[in-house]
Amino acid sequence: MFKDIKIGCSSSRTKYGNRLDTAIVKLEKKAIWSGLFTSNKFKSAPVEICLDKINKNISEPKVLMINAGNANAATGEKGKKDSEKLIDEVSSLLNISTDNILPFSTGVVGELLNTKKLSQAFKKCTDQLGGNSWEDFANSIMTTDTCHKIVKKEFKLGNQKINVIGVAKGVGMIEPNMATTLSFIFTDLKLSKIQLKKLHKDICNQTFNAISIDGDQSPSDSSIFITTSEKKRDINKYQKKIKNNFYDVFKELAEKLVLDGEGATKLIKIRVSGLRSYAASKKVALKVANSPLVKTAAYGEDPNWGRIITAAGNAGEKEFDMKNLSLKIGGHPVLINGNLSPKYSESKGKKEFRKKTINIEIKLGKSKQSALVMTSDLSPEYISINSDYRS
Amino acid sequence: MFKDIKIGCSSSRTKYGNRLDTAIVKLEKKAIWSGLFTSNKFKSAPVEICLDKINKNISEPKVLMINAGNANAATGEKGKKDSEKLIDEVSSLLNISTDNILPFSTGVVGELLNTKKLSQAFKKCTDQLGGNSWEDFANSIMTTDTCHKIVKKEFKLGNQKINVIGVAKGVGMIEPNMATTLSFIFTDLKLSKIQLKKLHKDICNQTFNAISIDGDQSPSDSSIFITTSEKKRDINKYQKKIKNNFYDVFKELAEKLVLDGEGATKLIKIRVSGLRSYAASKKVALKVANSPLVKTAAYGEDPNWGRIITAAGNAGEKEFDMKNLSLKIGGHPVLINGNLSPKYSESKGKKEFRKKTINIEIKLGKSKQSALVMTSDLSPEYISINSDYRS
Repeated sequence: MFKDIKIGCSSSRTKYGNRLDTAIVKLEKKAIWSGLFTSNKFKSAPVEICLDKINKNISEPKVLMINAGNANAATGEKGKKDSEKLIDEVSSLLNISTDNILPFSTGVVGELLNTKKLSQAFKKCTDQLGGNSWEDFANSIMTTDTCHKIVKKEFKLGNQKINVIGVAKGVGMIEPNMATTLSFIFTDLKLSKIQLKKLHKDICNQTFNAISIDGDQSPSDSSIFITTSEKKRDINKYQKKIKNNFYDVFKELAEKLVLDGEGATKLIKIRVSGLRSYAASKKVALKVANSPLVKTAAYGEDPNWGRIITAAGNAGEKEFDMKNLSLKIGGHPVLINGNLSPKYSESKGKKEFRKKTINIEIKLGKSKQSALVMTSDLSPEYISINSDYRS
Repeated sequence: MFKDIKIGCSSSRTKYGNRLDTAIVKLEKKAIWSGLFTSNKFKSAPVEICLDKINKNISEPKVLMINAGNANAATGEKGKKDSEKLIDEVSSLLNISTDNILPFSTGVVGELLNTKKLSQAFKKCTDQLGGNSWEDFANSIMTTDTCHKIVKKEFKLGNQKINVIGVAKGVGMIEPNMATTLSFIFTDLKLSKIQLKKLHKDICNQTFNAISIDGDQSPSDSSIFITTSEKKRDINKYQKKIKNNFYDVFKELAEKLVLDGEGATKLIKIRVSGLRSYAASKKVALKVANSPLVKTAAYGEDPNWGRIITAAGNAGEKEFDMKNLSLKIGGHPVLINGNLSPKYSESKGKKEFRKKTINIEIKLGKSKQSALVMTSDLSPEYISINSDYRS
């Protein structure tokens, strides 16, 4: 699978000792890409460079180059020149136009790249292209992740087997020196550029953009979706199947990110339904997911549902009306149309909050729309990790 | 001072043992009030009742009745009836129309009031009206506050002495079972209803609404501003002096709330300047103040400024441009127009982060507008307090 994608990884020996922390991914055949990036107004140099390529409508990716340990963010003009220098070098080494090289950096913010060591590392990556595995690639992009994240999937469209592989690195709740979420998803299903972009946007919105870290996005968050196939086929009748299969890959990667969150002991799933739009539902769910009070209650296994509806109310959603609010914890009704459910007891809630996965359902009206958001709890370990001095 | 305001306090013996936890404040002379309430869509029964009075344009307050320990929120129709029952009783006891009685509740969310015990407690309050001090009042409205909050101030307009007294209860970062901020500020300066409301709104916006807890508002947050004087005078030429003096009282109360935050070890002051409007500046400052990463860095005394500008960028402010961003920590330039300041060193930042008060300045343009937001750090004690089981 994906024989035409060559991977080379190495260690820059800058931040992580001998660990793999640089990667080159080379696409041997014609491919097209879709890139979605942080909505933070403050963007890293590599993100600015990728966005430039999108603006210039450069749609063919030939090389992805990634380094972990330094995000090259808040590094001003010097930072941008550093990234461009590394791209120039890889361009010469592989004889590929700089236009077709996409850079990604993740790690500490506000430090200049060690370009000397990174030059050497990327040189090594190019030397051994094809010599590394997907697992090596997934390992080499990690920062405080405790494990690499890969999801593979096959599905059939008629007689044709379609392959998908996704690699991501996480957030570690949001890591000490600015987490970045990077995700690279490849498929051999031929899609038009418009199809690829639409699928990517729709699915990201419901997966990587529906996990809550702390409500913030890093300057480096990037998701890349690439199709490598040359065979074109009519996929109209398979639209739903295609979307569902890709969705599964993105969602599984997103779950892995949440579960590997810093200090995380719980997975909290929040489903908001009944509002007229997906966007409104997601806004309310995200507000609950981002509430430190909800997160600490989850850590303490305290079914403090007052905090859940308080956070929901704070989303400022116009349709929100306590008279229509129903709340369930792990399937048990707590509030029914704004009134306390006589059947609910603290012990029922407590039992649900003791589970590894906590399911919260908030119904705010009669529409069948709903949004699912996933988050983790907030533990003392999170504070400990995040208040430790960086060096 | 304020001889015409009679205070009666007692203990309901519901949640805090023998501690004072109920109060009646009776205004013996004609007064007018301005009330500002939580922007949360989910509001407690007492807040709904106060808002009803505002909608009906009932501008004369004669009695404030407050209980601490139970917020009477998320209690549906029964909750509203309970508050109304208590108002009816106080109305009969004091022979005052229910229209002129303002109720306030703070404490746990999602539990019905113990109306029997509260009836008895409010009866005791009315029995001993005039027998309690402002300190008793401030004590009786506390929930997890570790100390009461009172600010008194006198100032002169020409020959006339003006008195102001403010009492508040806090957030304790935001307390285990939903913090409420309640504040009651009284003055004997005669103001028109329009003047009172405008002053209140402007000053709250820059004080109680410019301290960050966790970005959320409780269903019960209330600020009440009352003038009790009957003497009318022309105050046009004193506008600025009046505003500044009231501002000082509100700001000092707001600072006391932040400093008494749960687990707080630091006061973080964030000033954002250079954007065209106060609202935009405040939005950016609040985003920084609400970032768990900034708060944990403050707790850990780690001058991790990458997190500060990342949070600032996440505010999504249109004018935000890294090229114009300058950052100072405790007066030391870190970034100048998006580039690293050569004079900055980690040791300088570290020294500032070791102080009890951390000053952060973010400049984003050339406008002279600026906004100040205050917050506290995020410590393991916060998690410990907030993950403890409620009972």
